[in-house]
Amino acid sequence: MTAPANFNGARPVIDPKDAAMLLIDHQSGLFQTVADMPMPVLRNHAIALAKMATLCKIPVITTASVPQGPNGPLIPEIHEAAPHAQYVARTGQINAWDNPDFVEAVRKTGKKTLIVAGTVTSVCMAFPAISAVQEGYKVFAVVDASGTYSKMAQEIRLARIVQAGVVPTDTAAVASELQSTWHRDDAQQWAELYTLIFPPYKLLIESYAKAQEVIQKNEQLDSSRA
Amino acid sequence: MTAPANFNGARPVIDPKDAAMLLIDHQSGLFQTVADMPMPVLRNHAIALAKMATLCKIPVITTASVPQGPNGPLIPEIHEAAPHAQYVARTGQINAWDNPDFVEAVRKTGKKTLIVAGTVTSVCMAFPAISAVQEGYKVFAVVDASGTYSKMAQEIRLARIVQAGVVPTDTAAVASELQSTWHRDDAQQWAELYTLIFPPYKLLIESYAKAQEVIQKNEQLDSSRA
Amino acid sequence: MTAPANFNGARPVIDPKDAAMLLIDHQSGLFQTVADMPMPVLRNHAIALAKMATLCKIPVITTASVPQGPNGPLIPEIHEAAPHAQYVARTGQINAWDNPDFVEAVRKTGKKTLIVAGTVTSVCMAFPAISAVQEGYKVFAVVDASGTYSKMAQEIRLARIVQAGVVPTDTAAVASELQSTWHRDDAQQWAELYTLIFPPYKLLIESYAKAQEVIQKNEQLDSSRA
Amino acid sequence: MTAPANFNGARPVIDPKDAAMLLIDHQSGLFQTVADMPMPVLRNHAIALAKMATLCKIPVITTASVPQGPNGPLIPEIHEAAPHAQYVARTGQINAWDNPDFVEAVRKTGKKTLIVAGTVTSVCMAFPAISAVQEGYKVFAVVDASGTYSKMAQEIRLARIVQAGVVPTDTAAVASELQSTWHRDDAQQWAELYTLIFPPYKLLIESYAKAQEVIQKNEQLDSSRA
Amino acid sequence: MTAPANFNGARPVIDPKDAAMLLIDHQSGLFQTVADMPMPVLRNHAIALAKMATLCKIPVITTASVPQGPNGPLIPEIHEAAPHAQYVARTGQINAWDNPDFVEAVRKTGKKTLIVAGTVTSVCMAFPAISAVQEGYKVFAVVDASGTYSKMAQEIRLARIVQAGVVPTDTAAVASELQSTWHRDDAQQWAELYTLIFPPYKLLIESYAKAQEVIQKNEQLDSSRA
Amino acid sequence: MTAPANFNGARPVIDPKDAAMLLIDHQSGLFQTVADMPMPVLRNHAIALAKMATLCKIPVITTASVPQGPNGPLIPEIHEAAPHAQYVARTGQINAWDNPDFVEAVRKTGKKTLIVAGTVTSVCMAFPAISAVQEGYKVFAVVDASGTYSKMAQEIRLARIVQAGVVPTDTAAVASELQSTWHRDDAQQWAELYTLIFPPYKLLIESYAKAQEVIQKNEQLDSSRA
Amino acid sequence: MTAPANFNGARPVIDPKDAAMLLIDHQSGLFQTVADMPMPVLRNHAIALAKMATLCKIPVITTASVPQGPNGPLIPEIHEAAPHAQYVARTGQINAWDNPDFVEAVRKTGKKTLIVAGTVTSVCMAFPAISAVQEGYKVFAVVDASGTYSKMAQEIRLARIVQAGVVPTDTAAVASELQSTWHRDDAQQWAELYTLIFPPYKLLIESYAKAQEVIQKNEQLDSSRA
Amino acid sequence: MTAPANFNGARPVIDPKDAAMLLIDHQSGLFQTVADMPMPVLRNHAIALAKMATLCKIPVITTASVPQGPNGPLIPEIHEAAPHAQYVARTGQINAWDNPDFVEAVRKTGKKTLIVAGTVTSVCMAFPAISAVQEGYKVFAVVDASGTYSKMAQEIRLARIVQAGVVPTDTAAVASELQSTWHRDDAQQWAELYTLIFPPYKLLIESYAKAQEVIQKNEQLDSSRA
Repeated sequence: MTAPANFNGARPVIDPKDAAMLLIDHQSGLFQTVADMPMPVLRNHAIALAKMATLCKIPVITTASVPQGPNGPLIPEIHEAAPHAQYVARTGQINAWDNPDFVEAVRKTGKKTLIVAGTVTSVCMAFPAISAVQEGYKVFAVVDASGTYSKMAQEIRLARIVQAGVVPTDTAAVASELQSTWHRDDAQQWAELYTLIFPPYKLLIESYAKAQEVIQKNEQLDSSRA
Repeated sequence: MTAPANFNGARPVIDPKDAAMLLIDHQSGLFQTVADMPMPVLRNHAIALAKMATLCKIPVITTASVPQGPNGPLIPEIHEAAPHAQYVARTGQINAWDNPDFVEAVRKTGKKTLIVAGTVTSVCMAFPAISAVQEGYKVFAVVDASGTYSKMAQEIRLARIVQAGVVPTDTAAVASELQSTWHRDDAQQWAELYTLIFPPYKLLIESYAKAQEVIQKNEQLDSSRA
Repeated sequence: MTAPANFNGARPVIDPKDAAMLLIDHQSGLFQTVADMPMPVLRNHAIALAKMATLCKIPVITTASVPQGPNGPLIPEIHEAAPHAQYVARTGQINAWDNPDFVEAVRKTGKKTLIVAGTVTSVCMAFPAISAVQEGYKVFAVVDASGTYSKMAQEIRLARIVQAGVVPTDTAAVASELQSTWHRDDAQQWAELYTLIFPPYKLLIESYAKAQEVIQKNEQLDSSRA
Repeated sequence: MTAPANFNGARPVIDPKDAAMLLIDHQSGLFQTVADMPMPVLRNHAIALAKMATLCKIPVITTASVPQGPNGPLIPEIHEAAPHAQYVARTGQINAWDNPDFVEAVRKTGKKTLIVAGTVTSVCMAFPAISAVQEGYKVFAVVDASGTYSKMAQEIRLARIVQAGVVPTDTAAVASELQSTWHRDDAQQWAELYTLIFPPYKLLIESYAKAQEVIQKNEQLDSSRA
Repeated sequence: MTAPANFNGARPVIDPKDAAMLLIDHQSGLFQTVADMPMPVLRNHAIALAKMATLCKIPVITTASVPQGPNGPLIPEIHEAAPHAQYVARTGQINAWDNPDFVEAVRKTGKKTLIVAGTVTSVCMAFPAISAVQEGYKVFAVVDASGTYSKMAQEIRLARIVQAGVVPTDTAAVASELQSTWHRDDAQQWAELYTLIFPPYKLLIESYAKAQEVIQKNEQLDSSRA
Repeated sequence: MTAPANFNGARPVIDPKDAAMLLIDHQSGLFQTVADMPMPVLRNHAIALAKMATLCKIPVITTASVPQGPNGPLIPEIHEAAPHAQYVARTGQINAWDNPDFVEAVRKTGKKTLIVAGTVTSVCMAFPAISAVQEGYKVFAVVDASGTYSKMAQEIRLARIVQAGVVPTDTAAVASELQSTWHRDDAQQWAELYTLIFPPYKLLIESYAKAQEVIQKNEQLDSSRA
Repeated sequence: MTAPANFNGARPVIDPKDAAMLLIDHQSGLFQTVADMPMPVLRNHAIALAKMATLCKIPVITTASVPQGPNGPLIPEIHEAAPHAQYVARTGQINAWDNPDFVEAVRKTGKKTLIVAGTVTSVCMAFPAISAVQEGYKVFAVVDASGTYSKMAQEIRLARIVQAGVVPTDTAAVASELQSTWHRDDAQQWAELYTLIFPPYKLLIESYAKAQEVIQKNEQLDSSRA
Repeated sequence: MTAPANFNGARPVIDPKDAAMLLIDHQSGLFQTVADMPMPVLRNHAIALAKMATLCKIPVITTASVPQGPNGPLIPEIHEAAPHAQYVARTGQINAWDNPDFVEAVRKTGKKTLIVAGTVTSVCMAFPAISAVQEGYKVFAVVDASGTYSKMAQEIRLARIVQAGVVPTDTAAVASELQSTWHRDDAQQWAELYTLIFPPYKLLIESYAKAQEVIQKNEQLDSSRA
């Protein structure tokens, strides 16, 4: 394969109207094994995905791998940020796509474009992504909202999913493909969402507001008060 | 000097009853210049200091360097986390200790032990710290709640303040010296505070709670439900 | 090529029933030349592969490159962990696939899916992997159980094997594709196996057990004993 | 201070006959927060310390910080490797030296030289180390058997303990100061111990043995068999 | 796709006569979010692109994403270095290719080969690049004149654009494909341009000139004057 | 020594009225050997020192090590930025302080506080710095305006000069100690100077100006024009 | 393309009998711009290629880009190690393949497999490699014997040459494909050659020889002499 | 201590006339455990020390730790480069200073200044260095000609030896303190020696010679021949 699968030559981008989001195994225990990026970055990216799904009213399906064991519970922020998300319990399958309830939940969304993230990248994200490609879905794998046990494992995985026809993407690109334009009523909410992905963006907003306030309120520089 | 200054042979640790905290120039613009640690880490450490001062009722003095200019405003979380903090405006002095109002505010706390953090480390933290040592204060410089423009600059600065008799410290150590024991009513608030310094601590708390809940609620492992 | 070779459009994953494992040149001397990952990590990954082959009763073939010389002996843990492994001595060939005994041993397993790891990646893993693709095998190359002399060499090699139709993979993914589900009697052995791949997993298991024991034995927190 | 404290001009090295070892808070939960070195490296170093104490019959005192909570249990290998170690429970004190039972246990060893390691370095190792210096002990802090939340925190801590008169050391140096000579009956056990500190040492031993075996058994090079 | 798109088998290189350059969203605010390379390096690369377009008389189109907000203004050097560049304002579209004025400006150049750079890589460079491929352009994406929020995001993006048929390139390669030969009258200007891409090149030129001057002016070595 | 030498207990800071600056061996050839920081960063720091000396009218003495040989010429920007600098040719001495003309030039400034930078740190900066301390000067060594052949060499050198009583410092701290306050007529020139030390400062100034212009000119956001 | 070009389905490996080697622009000046690997590593790899060409009697063609200017002379070891190499002077062309003499020299070797290395990777290696693919050659690009100005540029270039049908490879793999077997008379020379690629291999040979000598000469351990 | 020991206020530099060099345990096996710098760099630095001792006729004493075992033989280049070096066999002592023959050999040189390097830094260099300080020697420890098992161990060791009064130094500084001036007959040999410490220095020499040759031989630029 290696070309983006199932696009039939169309521009390989996300159509927000056709998209469902799968957030797989973002669990407190598994997060301890993540070493390809700082864990708080991963946590923020996963939350950002949930938030953008809510902003765009995209269906979200979550699942966890034996959360009663050492893998630990799903991080709570995902369902907080996407209250409409549907949780599907598995019965031990490592590949979520091997669980019929999960596949059925995906099918019922009626969407053919899947945005997939999962921890660990190598397994929980990659296996369902590759499986879904085989069944005709257009699959976007959000590599930096997934997390795995080494940078090398992440690089290997990137190569493998591309080889299988999955479109690799990052959290910022998903946000921007879904948002599409700043000319929308919820633009401010998107700006806040980007602060989860680009932390300096929060500083930019703060500095921008202050710089304008100085003019608006006619503030004097402290150093000219001396 | 190089020995911890002004301890006269006493154990060189923080006495919470004798301590005041100086948080200097943690501004949105200056934060963009920080390169010795990820900026969000610095931001969390500065917030953690403000929170622990509140938990321990330690006086806090803040100040900013020309916040009407490109240096930008103080990050808002500091005064939110330490509502009792006193802000002292300067009139252009780079070394806060060169501003008489600032020195007077410190003096009025009646404390002789100063916990100092400031951005950039090289200047805004180090100059007042070195100045205060000369005037008889016991000074603890929180290097990883300060932030500067390169790792090398941070290392140079660490060497310089030690040479001048300042006690170098990190955010976690300040927290633990102030907290002293887990046998206290606000132990839970301290646990939450540590999640700002050690992000995996949040995962530990989540996994711990879930593991106990599984026993308490007699939950079955998903994988044995199959 | 560049698409996974010899799958004829089927889902490019490992079928444990059709798989044989080739562990090539994991020798004490060659391990000293490895620089793309910490050597103990590589050693653990190679051992983990041997263990999972044993758990799944997958045939294993090992070989070594002139172990009587500076390349040194095979690390002993591989045959310890996979006592059923068959060792094939070569007569100087660098590409194990150039040795007729080796190819014959592979052929006799009757398997068409090969899981290949070898040190150094660039040579001992890659040459047989590329050769096997040409002869119709489905080949999975376990890049992080191989090891080579620089990170750059590893990246180059990853690109080359993908170009040749090999499926790149990592140790964790091989484990999970072979294990398939936690709903199996040997689940505990798999959990232990993952501690070789994700060292923090051992901590998770320890902390999980203790957290549950505290409830089960009704232990008091030390800090509330004071 | 900054000079090694309490040596009164004597060579600042460990006298094995006068030494006790303090292993503080090496707990499964706290290990998840360690980021200044790979956790498995820290784990091996802590185990190596316990082993060398056993080889040299040095008293060992262990303790843990609220092991019933998220900090988790002591890693089991320490008491396995040093069965003679004495565990002292605390009642919430963060600085083990604030616990009278702990100080008393140290006193009872009758030793005046302390080898101290603890997680996290910034707190659990540094506070007792600095406290003990004040009470006249010669203190060696094993920085790379301690572990803390950032490389920067480790560097800051190194500077602080040196400033306070603690002698900073590493796991290998402690081993070599205790072992002193290879001319001893347990030399082989020391060689094995070093494989925990220098993992390539295991490869050296394996390659060395094989190279000698080739001569002793008159083995032919595989490449000359062709 | 994955092969370079729209070349129809021709050598996939830049034909300077058929090329237009698109410089997208190189803005002072967005530059603060860049973390895959040092920002001054990115700034120099963007300027170098503008300069080489001027040297080769290649049309340049610039645009910015809401420069009145926190994203900030275009860095001024781009239009200074390429005074012939045409600026196209957008009306909020994140993908410049979604803005009809922008597409029309590209079309009007009459060129079918596009050299594209933009910040952030993941979005502002990649979206137009992928879009243009779909409309038949030969697209060269200058990854190291773009800049994004993490090294991982850059690597993901590289994989995605290659998958989509974009030709990935770097600033030096664009310069050399455009320059083609040192046998040209403006060779000296190209040498200076390379100092923006390879900073040591400036040292080479300085040392080279001095070494020749020593001969030409018959200078004595200072050390032989003693 | 290890305490800052020759301060006799006074605050160990730079008194601009008593300071001379020594810029030693910043040569194009030697710059090629620098590996403890990116060379362009070193170049900017050296230029920044020259500029601040000019702003504060501090005497500057430069020298070079056999610039007629492979060490190459002084970088030209230093004398451009400090036209008042005095160049002293040596006759082969590696330690500039071994050259009587150099020592005499320093003596003639009448200053007792020396700000020293030189490439390579290990030699050209450190030797004169240590020598000057012995002759009663207060010496500030600007480690990140010096440059040496490895990060390790830089760290070793930092330790050695501190041990010898030199005050280690960084370029930003020198600037701020000399500038002292933003309440001065040349404040804008200092702001520009900091852009050489903190490159993001340039972005801050650009974004700040644009944010204020938007208010002052009542500009509309592009995204609200749609 | 993206599959290895011009193999027509044959195993994509080097046939030593059909190979010529092109070593392009390994010049002292250009080497100063290399930042994707330590320059001495690159130098050793280039020398190793020349040596293996000599061992295998493979034709070598060298060329340089304006060696009379700041790019500097070819490093001398290449022609020393491959005395049979043919040097082709260019007349300013950046892409060596644009020089008719160079192309003719390649053609005259009668070989259809080209092993190409050049500095900088992005230009001097990549342009001829891509050009040769178009003219029907099987091209192996030795990425880690080339060298370029940033790790990112190297990664981009790897992607581009793979996209163009070039086979990416590393120095070790070229050596092993050419050597093929240890069962050859010049095996010792190959072992020495590998010490240029894997420096620890030299240690292995030294330790191996000593370990055998101890047995052969019946040496006593120093530690048992005590 | 922490001040340089045994200088009694004199300038803490090496007096070549009073210096002896101790090169301890630079063995092929131990070199495999080195991880604080690339091993070939360490090897070059050790060789450089031997060469400069020969150039300055400084006595050299070498020794090895059980070279008949896995630690391996001394690297041969040391005695090749310093044929006058005296080898002292030990009888198992880890600290060379515990061996009476070694101490006696040092004493017999009649020198009071010792330049010490040894692998591993933590043990073989540090223990004799600290011991010698106690016995009145001025000791210079060449940290980057020593080598140890982690960067952290190197940093800890640097702190410990400084605390003990040893002067830390690097290979380049030792060379320059011994050489003192370029105005000497063997200047060319020193230039060559520096190429072992600063590998780019070799490029500088090559480029310098070529640049001058172009003038001297009136060579035309290739690009103007076109």
